[in-house]
Amino acid sequence: MQLKSLIESRYSVRAYLPNVVEREKINYILECARLSPSACNLQPWKFYIITDPVLKQKVEESYNREWFKSAPMHIIVCKDTSISWKRTATDGKDFSDVDAAIAAEHICLAAAEQGLGTCWICNFNPGILNKALDLPQHIEAIAIFPVGYINEEKSISPAKVRKSIADITEWR
Amino acid sequence: MQLKSLIESRYSVRAYLPNVVEREKINYILECARLSPSACNLQPWKFYIITDPVLKQKVEESYNREWFKSAPMHIIVCKDTSISWKRTATDGKDFSDVDAAIAAEHICLAAAEQGLGTCWICNFNPGILNKALDLPQHIEAIAIFPVGYINEEKSISPAKVRKSIADITEWR
Repeated sequence: MQLKSLIESRYSVRAYLPNVVEREKINYILECARLSPSACNLQPWKFYIITDPVLKQKVEESYNREWFKSAPMHIIVCKDTSISWKRTATDGKDFSDVDAAIAAEHICLAAAEQGLGTCWICNFNPGILNKALDLPQHIEAIAIFPVGYINEEKSISPAKVRKSIADITEWR
Repeated sequence: MQLKSLIESRYSVRAYLPNVVEREKINYILECARLSPSACNLQPWKFYIITDPVLKQKVEESYNREWFKSAPMHIIVCKDTSISWKRTATDGKDFSDVDAAIAAEHICLAAAEQGLGTCWICNFNPGILNKALDLPQHIEAIAIFPVGYINEEKSISPAKVRKSIADITEWR
């Protein structure tokens, strides 16, 4: 599929079918994340795939929405600040958010290509999530993705509302 | 093209031909960035397309590499912290790096799909770049992308070196 069509087809899915997602589809999605570029190729990321019902429920307590629980699984994208690249020559900026976001968006696009729904969730409670996963201090979740087949009866793809090209670009 | 193949085909190109890139290709790339998802759909990004020779040279002073100058143009991806989403309910984390990185990676993948080379450059000198672009304090560049046709005689696509799936994933 053309990339633009893939980007257009992806939307924030908030209703899932309970069907288990095939392992080969998950493997494909994770492979797309694994191949992501990162600063100095340091690959400062870790992906938790949550399918155990007890742990899944604990994760869902970090983002308490009924629709969220309808997904059969979640992929949690974390960054590792102990190995991420910092711009030490000048301002010391840590690029772990940037690198983890690249991998996360690959997950999102790859899932859409596989006919699966996802949703970028960043408004989780980090304290509750860290405790559920028992994350060490240098590992930080940047997003949770519920992953599953879309419940087409309850979910509609909305028209994309975006700023115009003129509003966001400047040619110089 | 399959997403995985597109991701595999993209690499950090460090040798460009001087040929001007067609406007329709740049428009396609920017459209892929424009359609990116972002936290609460706030779209906290701005893209500077640099073709003017004098300004281009000033931008290149922020990352002093001979190969960088071979590209006929640069796209600079900036985030806008005055409108980006912050996780105010808990830790206040600012998601502008995450959102800008999504749009930046769309640029990178879209360019590869169009047969163009790019390279994620984050190790620029932000002071020099801010001055060249005269950026206000709430606008911060997260990456510069040289964009152009690949000089195939001087550039080779390296084999991708990445951690194994076992090293970066945990099923729970």
